[in-house]
Amino acid sequence: MDLLTPYQLRQQIKTGQFQGQTSGLASGYVQCNMAIVPQSSAAEFLLFCQRNAKACPLVAVSEPGQFLLPELGLDLDLRTDLPSYRVFKQGELVDEVLDIRALWRDDLVSFLIGCSFSFEEALLAAGLEIRHISEGKNVPMYNTQLACVSAGRFSGNMVVSMRPMKPADAIRAIQICSRFPAVHGAPVHFGDPQAIGISDIRSPDYGEAVSIKPGEVPVFWACGVTPQAVIKQAKPDFCISHSPGHMLVTDLLNSSLASF
Amino acid sequence: MDLLTPYQLRQQIKTGQFQGQTSGLASGYVQCNMAIVPQSSAAEFLLFCQRNAKACPLVAVSEPGQFLLPELGLDLDLRTDLPSYRVFKQGELVDEVLDIRALWRDDLVSFLIGCSFSFEEALLAAGLEIRHISEGKNVPMYNTQLACVSAGRFSGNMVVSMRPMKPADAIRAIQICSRFPAVHGAPVHFGDPQAIGISDIRSPDYGEAVSIKPGEVPVFWACGVTPQAVIKQAKPDFCISHSPGHMLVTDLLNSSLASF
Repeated sequence: MDLLTPYQLRQQIKTGQFQGQTSGLASGYVQCNMAIVPQSSAAEFLLFCQRNAKACPLVAVSEPGQFLLPELGLDLDLRTDLPSYRVFKQGELVDEVLDIRALWRDDLVSFLIGCSFSFEEALLAAGLEIRHISEGKNVPMYNTQLACVSAGRFSGNMVVSMRPMKPADAIRAIQICSRFPAVHGAPVHFGDPQAIGISDIRSPDYGEAVSIKPGEVPVFWACGVTPQAVIKQAKPDFCISHSPGHMLVTDLLNSSLASF
Repeated sequence: MDLLTPYQLRQQIKTGQFQGQTSGLASGYVQCNMAIVPQSSAAEFLLFCQRNAKACPLVAVSEPGQFLLPELGLDLDLRTDLPSYRVFKQGELVDEVLDIRALWRDDLVSFLIGCSFSFEEALLAAGLEIRHISEGKNVPMYNTQLACVSAGRFSGNMVVSMRPMKPADAIRAIQICSRFPAVHGAPVHFGDPQAIGISDIRSPDYGEAVSIKPGEVPVFWACGVTPQAVIKQAKPDFCISHSPGHMLVTDLLNSSLASF
């Protein structure tokens, strides 16, 4: 499974043969968070992403109604090529589906947002340990009191992911992630969780807790869950997202995102 | 005084009109630490610098006996163009002089080593506060238990400089300093001083203590005092250095050192 090209993997997803999480698959290629909103909300949400680029780094934005994105991948169809989708009405989760062709509308605008998988691959390639991967868990994520910059109805606080590291490794991680602004870039904080409004580091709001060893500090990155949390709060009539961990796998190389 | 070009400043130093510290002068231009050792020690010291490039980043190394370095500056003469020199015999400070022409020997090799003034200018330009500058003090420096890699007689522990910052500013500082490997590059540590063998952050081994405010962490950089400490310990028959703060001012732009 993990030796498939992105195209082959998307074919398996398109035909329903693969319905699982995409973490670790099609290694070397960009995976994306997805948020789909009606055109009536799209301009405001685009502005929100522009103003909060660390949490919502845009890899691509579709035209209204567009579901084929050849610039992201061969035969790539946003309606069928993600393993699982979540459907929201008035901000409430109403369904989880494998295909959104039946829900498609000509006014839907799709936002493809960078994902931490890309920078995690660069960190692993540099010999750094990533604790949740070592421990076979989902990355721990936390609500914070770091306010996003509002745009119309879209507002809220940043969600962050956390990876514990020794300070020297954290410095290296900051250098590496700074090369990848399109996938959240450098961390936004390290050290004291309370300084950004996290009261208990052992109780993440999403994902799973990981161990923090003596001499390590928690390092916090802006997280792609932020736009989902913000959309849910803005309660547009209708919206669709990927299911957590079930990302859009593209033909773009992670290395193509490096800024230098 | 601070509006002089590097050439004009060196002329004032050469003629004895200026004998002070060079911090803040000839803004925008590279200043260097200097260590001069006999040729018999030069190969080992060069190897030490190569193996410990974060503490001893070499901007230039002379030929034996060479005292004019046109690649560093117009009419630049290492014997006269620093405001003050220290002379060591068997590792002991024996004299502090304004001119080393009378001490010059055909076997002396000069090492010009990058200085934190260059990256501090880049940090200030990015709007970051540098506490010792705000407080009008010398930067606090500390002996650590971070071992340098030995080369022949040259061995010892790294000396670090410290600048307190909020974590978000420290992340920005890591990004900025990573562009300047020729002037110590990224920090080597942040947070717990004891993790690198510093028992009391309020008592620096060199320079002066600065205040650390709530929410700030100490950030530690490899320091150009390291080679001086190592040379003193290796006790070569004869050596010369700049006096602390009395640097060689070159015609090289700080921006020319940026790696990207």
